[in-house]
Amino acid sequence: MRPELTVIKIGGNVLENPQFYAEFLDGLSSISKPFIIVHGGGKIATEISQNLGIQTQMIAGRRVTSSEDLKVVIMTYAGLINKKLVADLQSKNCSAIGLSGADANLITSTIRSKTPIDFGLVGDVEKVNGEFLQLLLKNGMTPIICSLTHDGKGQLLNTNADTIASEISIEMGQFYTVNLHYCFEKNGVLKDAEIENSLISHVTSKVYHRLIEQNKIHSGMIPKLENSFHALKNGVSTITIRSYSNLNGLNKYTTISL
Amino acid sequence: MRPELTVIKIGGNVLENPQFYAEFLDGLSSISKPFIIVHGGGKIATEISQNLGIQTQMIAGRRVTSSEDLKVVIMTYAGLINKKLVADLQSKNCSAIGLSGADANLITSTIRSKTPIDFGLVGDVEKVNGEFLQLLLKNGMTPIICSLTHDGKGQLLNTNADTIASEISIEMGQFYTVNLHYCFEKNGVLKDAEIENSLISHVTSKVYHRLIEQNKIHSGMIPKLENSFHALKNGVSTITIRSYSNLNGLNKYTTISL
Repeated sequence: MRPELTVIKIGGNVLENPQFYAEFLDGLSSISKPFIIVHGGGKIATEISQNLGIQTQMIAGRRVTSSEDLKVVIMTYAGLINKKLVADLQSKNCSAIGLSGADANLITSTIRSKTPIDFGLVGDVEKVNGEFLQLLLKNGMTPIICSLTHDGKGQLLNTNADTIASEISIEMGQFYTVNLHYCFEKNGVLKDAEIENSLISHVTSKVYHRLIEQNKIHSGMIPKLENSFHALKNGVSTITIRSYSNLNGLNKYTTISL
Repeated sequence: MRPELTVIKIGGNVLENPQFYAEFLDGLSSISKPFIIVHGGGKIATEISQNLGIQTQMIAGRRVTSSEDLKVVIMTYAGLINKKLVADLQSKNCSAIGLSGADANLITSTIRSKTPIDFGLVGDVEKVNGEFLQLLLKNGMTPIICSLTHDGKGQLLNTNADTIASEISIEMGQFYTVNLHYCFEKNGVLKDAEIENSLISHVTSKVYHRLIEQNKIHSGMIPKLENSFHALKNGVSTITIRSYSNLNGLNKYTTISL
């Protein structure tokens, strides 16, 4: 029997809200080790870009990462957010270690094709260095991974944090029984994004396609679910979408299955 | 016989100059592994602070680290500079891993006393986690360490990079024969800072005190030399002060002894 591993993706809206952030950190004590955290932080990066006078270009609701944007993303994700999380976890006796995809060649990627839409310096995950993560986990460490990858030729690339969480979960599925939790400020997948008690407790790919047809799922939820189905097909044991304040699973949340 | 380890402190003026930086990276191929790099990046942080409209307060020529300054320092050192170095080294087949003092509890510190001068969020090194560095080195990794430490209670602290380099060298002296190189844009310790060929090839503590009396050593060189003598007294084998472009030691440089 393989040991258990929990992979937690934490949403940017939680990281930027001091109260949510404190509750999330407290909740981590209810998670049994080993675990891995994956984070982005787009909203905080956008705020810093604005303070630096950098214009953020959006196409179809998605950020285009220029070289100036990438600098801010590196500073925010790998610097500000990652090191704060690490220092805070260290204060709670959790030996956190912060990583980007370049560190120890953790995640290599290829720059996304410029057609049909040029999103700039964005990477699609190629390979995760699972042996390195295993080395850290076996030595009692908790990897805190920000959503940056590299192309192996010296270029860092902005990469979707939900995808990183699922690709890491798939890679670690070779060594562990992996439970992946997408944590954010909602209770899970909702029938109506405005009504918290419209929670759907169980989403299958059939339910997902029906929700898409009915135009009930939007923006951020689509990559979470697409990544979930991909991960389930590739050896990840369980996936949930839940509130940052519900890591112990005492309240309702959404489970995903094929 | 203990194996050899090279610790390289690289100065901020080299990191901010694209040509110097490229030459420094190329020169690293002449260093036999294992090695560790330590860096700060004060000038780049000051530039970003200015772009963000943050006023940097200086007392006696030294920066006071406010909480706003610290954010910029974290973004710049642990984010921008560290991850660029890591990605560039990865592209040269060096398995670099970027770290702050909070990661894996690498360097704990205590906040500096507010008397006689309150320098703000500045830390004095307490303990280096040498076992963790040894784990990385034994697994073929090259630690790239930025000049941030933490107090173990969730607070990151700005810390002198020269001191971090010497404290890491001292700690690693338990396991390795450590050669510490302070690398910067000058050829070494100069009799006259404006004249490159006024190099002093060998500085002892006696020579150092004479230079101080003659008012020939200033600002940045004093902590380098103080840290050097401290490191030599605590088991570090050799220390040099040299140009970033002279890692192979083909040109002249300054060696330090007690």
